[in-house]
Amino acid sequence: MRIPILKLRQYLLISVQVELDDQTALRFQEDLLNKIHSEGSIGVVIDLTSVDMIDSFIAKVLGDVVDMSGLMGAKVVLTGIQPAVAITLIDMGIKLQDVRTALDLEQGLEKLQLELEG
Amino acid sequence: MRIPILKLRQYLLISVQVELDDQTALRFQEDLLNKIHSEGSIGVVIDLTSVDMIDSFIAKVLGDVVDMSGLMGAKVVLTGIQPAVAITLIDMGIKLQDVRTALDLEQGLEKLQLELEG
Repeated sequence: MRIPILKLRQYLLISVQVELDDQTALRFQEDLLNKIHSEGSIGVVIDLTSVDMIDSFIAKVLGDVVDMSGLMGAKVVLTGIQPAVAITLIDMGIKLQDVRTALDLEQGLEKLQLELEG
Repeated sequence: MRIPILKLRQYLLISVQVELDDQTALRFQEDLLNKIHSEGSIGVVIDLTSVDMIDSFIAKVLGDVVDMSGLMGAKVVLTGIQPAVAITLIDMGIKLQDVRTALDLEQGLEKLQLELEG
């Protein structure tokens, strides 16, 4: 299963609306990095509104995606993290440090535009 | 298989990146109309860049989606129709009349914003 990646101007938008198993997450990681490279994107919004649960592996993959994208020159904002997901992450001791977050896709995009376009 | 629908302000963005079989198309139709209703969206962009092939049933479903969304008060723009898809549609005598189209997601969104926000 592939997670669709939408290109909007210099940004990539992703809304995760499938269950994130390990293989899907890794494939998404690869797809996203390739897309950043091919499109020359400067910012990425990953919306997790529909994600009910997250485990330590998926959390690590997400954290890695943010770091890898950063190395390639694209800033990532995670949006729509549900209460249960936030609780799980903190309970597991995963802080996704230095990761930008926002309430929803729209605010995530605004945050990126403010940071990147002033 | 569900096609993800992204909400951006008053608009819904869809990038079809799976093969459109009959069931997926009908489910998408239902999902989209429900989302227009629940979010109060005034415009929809459906990006078909990744769709290589289309048959008469899918073409009819897409045409219906446009008409149904219109009845509900949301304008739809189809974007990224590939040459092969355009050829197939015209060969089959399907003209998707009165359907707005644009080159890509970005231009589709701009078209809607121009029409709806002036």
